[in-house]
Amino acid sequence: MHPTLYAIPTPLGGLPGDALPESALGIVRGLRDFVAENAKSARAFLAAVGMPCALRELRIEVLDQNTRNDSVRALLAPLREGRALGLLSEAGCPAIADPGALLVAAAQGAGFRVAPLIGPSSIVLALMASGLEGQRFAFCGYLPRETGAREGRIRQLEQRSRAETATQVFIETPYRNQAIVTSLLRVCAPQTRLCVATDLTLPQETVVVRSIAEWRSAPPQPGRRPSVFLLLAS
Amino acid sequence: MHPTLYAIPTPLGGLPGDALPESALGIVRGLRDFVAENAKSARAFLAAVGMPCALRELRIEVLDQNTRNDSVRALLAPLREGRALGLLSEAGCPAIADPGALLVAAAQGAGFRVAPLIGPSSIVLALMASGLEGQRFAFCGYLPRETGAREGRIRQLEQRSRAETATQVFIETPYRNQAIVTSLLRVCAPQTRLCVATDLTLPQETVVVRSIAEWRSAPPQPGRRPSVFLLLAS
Repeated sequence: MHPTLYAIPTPLGGLPGDALPESALGIVRGLRDFVAENAKSARAFLAAVGMPCALRELRIEVLDQNTRNDSVRALLAPLREGRALGLLSEAGCPAIADPGALLVAAAQGAGFRVAPLIGPSSIVLALMASGLEGQRFAFCGYLPRETGAREGRIRQLEQRSRAETATQVFIETPYRNQAIVTSLLRVCAPQTRLCVATDLTLPQETVVVRSIAEWRSAPPQPGRRPSVFLLLAS
Repeated sequence: MHPTLYAIPTPLGGLPGDALPESALGIVRGLRDFVAENAKSARAFLAAVGMPCALRELRIEVLDQNTRNDSVRALLAPLREGRALGLLSEAGCPAIADPGALLVAAAQGAGFRVAPLIGPSSIVLALMASGLEGQRFAFCGYLPRETGAREGRIRQLEQRSRAETATQVFIETPYRNQAIVTSLLRVCAPQTRLCVATDLTLPQETVVVRSIAEWRSAPPQPGRRPSVFLLLAS
């Protein structure tokens, strides 16, 4: 049995038992070595998973935006010593829009087995519930912070969506939700459809699709709640 | 409480208990009305979920490639009558690369609540385990069947991947795996990285990343097993 790196999704909010299949939780409970973006929230997740050992017996190393590329390989030490290793994201799927991809790439490069566990992806949940084009879609990450650049990027994504009939998906840090909404309503064509998916998997979840024209008369109010935006131009 | 359309992922193989969180299984067990791509495999899934009623008491309507657009709205009848409705995919997430998006769009258009449940997405699982670029990626669906057109499309995807540092993800019906592999090895640049993810979530799962140059000396052998292909050019 080769040592395996498990890519472990974490809840978007709420409890692990609501977010991961029982078989995935069973694998997590068997691990003792973890790499996480944030040790504190990793510990909270592992406490809620019901680890069969004291949390202080777990080894949790941090991989975040400040981790130097040449330090990433050292995080594979448990695998080299023959033990399985778990990679935790801060919320949702590791290695998608988070620094974990560096660890997975290092593990792949060193020939270790990498196994992904099933769990929440805000991108996929939003797309499923949007009814927008699911045969072709692009995840574009974060939009530029500066208004002019952001609106230029939105124009570009709308054009591509129209030319290729492909849904364009993007996210933002919650405190910039309002800026994104303002830019979308200003820049996009009236008939372009916009889906705003907010608080996914939580009791107050909403996933609403409207044309830009409709949104203009009653703008989305995501406030500072985590949101995913999806755009399909026609 | 508004009637809700639940978008329900199904296993990529294996049992529902290994694929969906317990909270999602609980919601499925409470439903009596379903729309599915294939009634027979929907019944097999619902039998394995452990529905608390006889399967013959369930209403399962079919939405597949032959369903006419003007028949889709009729499938919303349970919602109009005040009951929740479940949308099942054939494997993986409904409304992503399957006809279910039409039903979700109709429900969104009619103002019903749509709630996505957590479950397996082969696209996301493959991306997580690939370590390829996860900040930007595109799902491109199926490639053209004809060799010339397919290889032209691969060239285009490779160019875009290089220009935008974005992972390009595509799938194929298993009996065309070999044709895809042959085209990829013929067309792509030696340093382009290709991930082949086969039998995801199953015991014999493999997710392997190599450069095209490396794959040329030991080509991937996905056979006719379900596979996802991911490409990142540099």
